[in-house]
Amino acid sequence: MARSPFEWIDEQARARSRAGLVRTLRPRPADSALLDLAGNDYLGLARHPEVTEGAARAARTWGGGATGSRLVSGSTELHAELERELAGFCGFESALVFSSGYAANLAAVTALAPHGSLIVSDAGNHASLIDGCRLARGTTQVVAHADPDAVRKALDTRAGPAIVVSDTVFSVDGDAAPLTALAAACRDAGEAGETGEAGKPGRPGAALVLDDAHGLGVIGDGGRGAAWAAGLAGAPDVVTTVTLSKSLGSQGGAVLGPAHVIDHLVNAARTFIFDTGLAPAAAGAALAALRLLREEPERAARARAVATALYERLTAEGLEAVRPDAAVVSVRAPSPEQALRWAAECRAAGLAVGCFRPPSVPDGISRLRLTARADLTDGQVDRAVGVIIEARR
Amino acid sequence: MARSPFEWIDEQARARSRAGLVRTLRPRPADSALLDLAGNDYLGLARHPEVTEGAARAARTWGGGATGSRLVSGSTELHAELERELAGFCGFESALVFSSGYAANLAAVTALAPHGSLIVSDAGNHASLIDGCRLARGTTQVVAHADPDAVRKALDTRAGPAIVVSDTVFSVDGDAAPLTALAAACRDAGEAGETGEAGKPGRPGAALVLDDAHGLGVIGDGGRGAAWAAGLAGAPDVVTTVTLSKSLGSQGGAVLGPAHVIDHLVNAARTFIFDTGLAPAAAGAALAALRLLREEPERAARARAVATALYERLTAEGLEAVRPDAAVVSVRAPSPEQALRWAAECRAAGLAVGCFRPPSVPDGISRLRLTARADLTDGQVDRAVGVIIEARR
Ligand SMILES: Cc1ncc(COP(=O)(O)O)c(C=O)c1O
Ligand SMILES: Cc1ncc(COP(=O)(O)O)c(C=O)c1O
Repeated sequence: MARSPFEWIDEQARARSRAGLVRTLRPRPADSALLDLAGNDYLGLARHPEVTEGAARAARTWGGGATGSRLVSGSTELHAELERELAGFCGFESALVFSSGYAANLAAVTALAPHGSLIVSDAGNHASLIDGCRLARGTTQVVAHADPDAVRKALDTRAGPAIVVSDTVFSVDGDAAPLTALAAACRDAGEAGETGEAGKPGRPGAALVLDDAHGLGVIGDGGRGAAWAAGLAGAPDVVTTVTLSKSLGSQGGAVLGPAHVIDHLVNAARTFIFDTGLAPAAAGAALAALRLLREEPERAARARAVATALYERLTAEGLEAVRPDAAVVSVRAPSPEQALRWAAECRAAGLAVGCFRPPSVPDGISRLRLTARADLTDGQVDRAVGVIIEARR
Repeated sequence: MARSPFEWIDEQARARSRAGLVRTLRPRPADSALLDLAGNDYLGLARHPEVTEGAARAARTWGGGATGSRLVSGSTELHAELERELAGFCGFESALVFSSGYAANLAAVTALAPHGSLIVSDAGNHASLIDGCRLARGTTQVVAHADPDAVRKALDTRAGPAIVVSDTVFSVDGDAAPLTALAAACRDAGEAGETGEAGKPGRPGAALVLDDAHGLGVIGDGGRGAAWAAGLAGAPDVVTTVTLSKSLGSQGGAVLGPAHVIDHLVNAARTFIFDTGLAPAAAGAALAALRLLREEPERAARARAVATALYERLTAEGLEAVRPDAAVVSVRAPSPEQALRWAAECRAAGLAVGCFRPPSVPDGISRLRLTARADLTDGQVDRAVGVIIEARR
């Protein structure tokens, strides 16, 4: 009998099983009774009636799909409206919407790091940024997590253009990147030109490319994002990516930056050119969520306050957690098996929490990953803390 | 003054402008009066009321977004339902839904081509497959377009596992891949083991990974896809990817294959693990479209008939086109500038057509790209042909 070309897959599956690292899907019902501290719906907008109505209306008006690449038939006035409002809200000149945050990150990194360029990438960056680095024609140098001095050193080695790439809020531990220091490192890498006819032309600094997936809607004045909070929004040397799938309760992603950079992405980014445009329903939902956030800016502060409360209550009970800079609260677990058991106990007690194990963590350490939501009541926070502490025993 | 880190972008923009290759977005209104032969809505379902209602209902029931990775909070019973029905319709054991066809392709290629493996990739493959090859840990060998002998030669060089990767219908020219010959090449690369105690264990053949983005809904019995048509659906050594964004009028993608391969993707595919699940509205729209296709299987044949009619009428008028194997009709243009002018003339006369120019074409040849739709009337086909011929002058 012919042997299967996928035998190696079965071997890997057995190894995963022995290591207790098998992942399985658990589809949830629409009316799950679980208290959800696992999703990234930080502002509690995914099920807001204005958001779901925004999705429904867009589908009826524009159709179920965009029908093609944004460069062929896939650009609608709805996409343009979302791009204008996103850029305006976050303080950038232009925006470009993609089918996912993952695609937006692949686009930003690949299109901004041509052959001969240097990419300086934080060791804790999200998988989509890492894949962007691997796809880009430039050379990648991975630097220690949240280490501006390491970034400076890496930039010293560059010959051509350079970008520094970082999550603003790291997805596993919820800690913030040192944005001000990173921007300074990028700018200090430039050299002013000499004035006068025979003056040397100087040398450009590096550009800063930020992934604000976990910052938009949570950080900065009314949730305008981490670049806004750091005074970097709209700067000529800063590009930010966001996702529409977390605080905005939808799907999709966007790149925000100077207009000429966005025009460049339209012409050069493969995940823009060769991908079908974002579905109208997703654009409509994100637009509705963005408008809600504008009207109710206190949602951002509430998400942060809930995260801080979770952190303080859990650490007061002796758990080891990372002080949250946004809405992600990461609690250490002693082992992958114990993390899994802990999460399962929480679930049995009515609480959904994330459980991050290798290979989804950069350092091999397993965690419970809790996400704060602006719409959690104090009573729900009490309940969540109680369940987590109880489930640990 | 500090120089901009994006100066090189402006240089590229000037070069693009000189070459007449600048791309700009043209957002369309919801009630465009253009006759659309540019989009990939092959069955005319994107605006079907059951499809848009499927999107609207799903958004109301499940929310605007999936709220997280499919492995955390992002799997709903709706995703599972879509996966079951897609697999069943196309004749595969299992399916896994992604946020886009692009993401599905990245997943299939990267997860099935580990370190030490060989990827044999057709020179005309879609950008997403090419990016998958570049991201994968295996070694890629690009072979001549639609050339099973070249595939056989490439497979001879392999040491470990191998996959052969091909579009079923190539997106630029609309021609079909030689699936039967490719499958034979994959299987012949295996060696039967000897029987008996001391027998050599044999050697597995290569796996065939097909991108059926332009085949699903158009090719095969009632649109069940190119793998079904070739008798390859459900085979233990065949994996197919599809998109939900063309015939199904929505957004998203899926990988179809044996259950153990799908389980492997759940555990290993980065664009699955680290991406937010497909928005419920997109899953709902695709599911509604799939059910319509089951009920009205004649839509598939009609799309093919319209494509053939377009091809025959245009070539009878002396245009050079590729005989369509599915719903894409590719007409050669003498130069990028003339392609652009031709498409603009069509547009001025009320007809939207695609215009593919470098770098979006593998061979540097510019084309008008027309897409047949099952819901085009004979009168609309007449009108389209008339406009295209007239606009050429
Ligand atoms: C930091 C970060 N960037 C990018 C993404 C990808 O965004 P999306 O899920 O919208 O594709 C995620 C999570 O999914 C993320 O956590
Ligand atoms: C052959 C092929 N594969 C994959 C894709 C990507 O699918 P999606 O647009 O759904 O991401 C496309 C087109 O967009 C395509 O033409």
